[in-house]
Amino acid sequence: MAELKNDRYLRALLKQPVDRTPIWMMRQAGRYLPEYKATRAEAGDFMSLCKNKELACEVTLQPLRRYDLDAAILFSDILTIPDAMGLGLYFETGEGPRFERPTDTIDSIKKLCVPDPEIELKYVMDAVSTIRRELKGDVPLIGFSGSPWTLATYMVEGGSSKTFEKIKKMAYEEPATLHMLLDKLADSVTSYLNAQVANGAQSLMIFDSWGGALSHHAYREFSLRYMQKIVDGLTRHADGRQVPVTLFTKGGGLWLEAMAETGCDALGLDWTVDIGDARRRVGEKVALQGNMDPSVLYGTPERIHQEVDQILSSYGEGTGHVFNLGHGIHQHVNPEHAGAFINSVHELSPKYHK
Amino acid sequence: MAELKNDRYLRALLKQPVDRTPIWMMRQAGRYLPEYKATRAEAGDFMSLCKNKELACEVTLQPLRRYDLDAAILFSDILTIPDAMGLGLYFETGEGPRFERPTDTIDSIKKLCVPDPEIELKYVMDAVSTIRRELKGDVPLIGFSGSPWTLATYMVEGGSSKTFEKIKKMAYEEPATLHMLLDKLADSVTSYLNAQVANGAQSLMIFDSWGGALSHHAYREFSLRYMQKIVDGLTRHADGRQVPVTLFTKGGGLWLEAMAETGCDALGLDWTVDIGDARRRVGEKVALQGNMDPSVLYGTPERIHQEVDQILSSYGEGTGHVFNLGHGIHQHVNPEHAGAFINSVHELSPKYHK
Repeated sequence: MAELKNDRYLRALLKQPVDRTPIWMMRQAGRYLPEYKATRAEAGDFMSLCKNKELACEVTLQPLRRYDLDAAILFSDILTIPDAMGLGLYFETGEGPRFERPTDTIDSIKKLCVPDPEIELKYVMDAVSTIRRELKGDVPLIGFSGSPWTLATYMVEGGSSKTFEKIKKMAYEEPATLHMLLDKLADSVTSYLNAQVANGAQSLMIFDSWGGALSHHAYREFSLRYMQKIVDGLTRHADGRQVPVTLFTKGGGLWLEAMAETGCDALGLDWTVDIGDARRRVGEKVALQGNMDPSVLYGTPERIHQEVDQILSSYGEGTGHVFNLGHGIHQHVNPEHAGAFINSVHELSPKYHK
Repeated sequence: MAELKNDRYLRALLKQPVDRTPIWMMRQAGRYLPEYKATRAEAGDFMSLCKNKELACEVTLQPLRRYDLDAAILFSDILTIPDAMGLGLYFETGEGPRFERPTDTIDSIKKLCVPDPEIELKYVMDAVSTIRRELKGDVPLIGFSGSPWTLATYMVEGGSSKTFEKIKKMAYEEPATLHMLLDKLADSVTSYLNAQVANGAQSLMIFDSWGGALSHHAYREFSLRYMQKIVDGLTRHADGRQVPVTLFTKGGGLWLEAMAETGCDALGLDWTVDIGDARRRVGEKVALQGNMDPSVLYGTPERIHQEVDQILSSYGEGTGHVFNLGHGIHQHVNPEHAGAFINSVHELSPKYHK
């Protein structure tokens, strides 16, 4: 493996000194980039792109060619695990992900098996090792998974949901059934992420996109508890370096203290939290990633610059901050605005690291 | 006007002693009730129901006949103001509210006029006075409006949205245009709510359903600032009693301190906040309304009882708590479970008011 040339992202997550605040963007390989759209058209549909290691590698590297970013993230979907469990993932235009066989009964949940990542998810491992090789040590590679709760919402609802009616009904009516599902998912995510590390991932992130839909108690019972189980089971070292783990619960700004107790290295923040407040609350324990509203990228470069300045100044001096958006970049953002955003972080952040 | 027989709800909002924690349910006049569905079928569509004062009164009173509730809420829609401004509100099955003429340009916003509630919104005022009369003083009548930001999201997006792409683009690209819209809406909401009080509303609530989509700074600039303007302009007394004002920003749990500074009497809480934490943060300034996840009503009566117990015990002793759900009751809830919920509050709460 090539030696890592830029370790700013890993260092900031571990609160080691850096020369400037590292930056990457959630969904940086995405539809706002014309080169991404071209490769995706070549692949056919979204899952074919995920399952083709060369094309998945290509789209992972595209934003790095265009921008001076401090990390690459595996191009994949959060629903690979349920798909590998046999639920039959497919995408309907305008509808988002769907499953042919939702698991909304105790019988269907009992039948689920924890996938072997080197068999049922071999295509993801191939993408990880290909990307790692092609990165040539330029920046670290982030592996990721959806959280058990988030995966379970899609599996039980059969797709996206606004109200999470079925899974919440299960949570309050037959919690033992849901716990069985979440426990299998926690085991699956753990082995999936460990396999990503074995194949070259240098940092891990768990996306809990829908944990914020839960009550403060239910979040602890149905989401955080299983992320804790995963954190406890993860490989935390590879190639002689620590593999940092970041937890991101969208809408979880009220629960940062509990999340920081899991022993993860960093928390992802959405834009509803003031990052300075978050640092005061949990900054002794964890690094913070975030947290500009992706919609700011619709503004002028001056407006973007101003927002970056505000976030950097709110976080304040010293390491422990990875700049990012508070959610994935939107598809209708002008790529030049994304460039202006990244440049603003490069330009404004060094003074906080003297 | 008949004298008010049950003022528990008003007293709790003003932090005066009560014998038990008052309770009402957001969207208590709604599709979970078969009698509501029958009246709505009689009316035709949703807006015809809102515009018929007898039928609007009938559905307002239905839940009070079935349950021992401590307040009635005007049956209406949050989008009456934009409709009165000429945007052409209509409902598409499964799609939610839509506007025929969205206001997404500076020219269309400049043309908007503040409606006269006694003219363009006369049908709402007729419903208010009819309901107040028919309540015969049993419980107080709550008037309400959407917040300027929430109304603006529908007006600019043309309907419901997940990402609020158009309005956030406006917020970051041409904020002055959005401020012009929000300012007109704040004036409209103020006169609309004051007219509701003049016609019989005894308490007011502002629903900021989408404030939680904003960043912590943008929330203050685009939502809270205009709710502040409304609070400053409201009639706070009628019939020799104070008219309490409740602000509810869904997803606003991080911002309670700022909301409490507006001078409102109470804050609505969704279920992501622990109500005891909220009380410690802002309980000296305001009363609190909430905050059970409506999905708990899918659980067994025992599970519902347990959740009510937990919320009451978290809030603790003394007045200042109005029990409610953290959002509107879901349409597929069993009405008997709603009854069990209300009974649990009646049964468990007196011990906190000795």
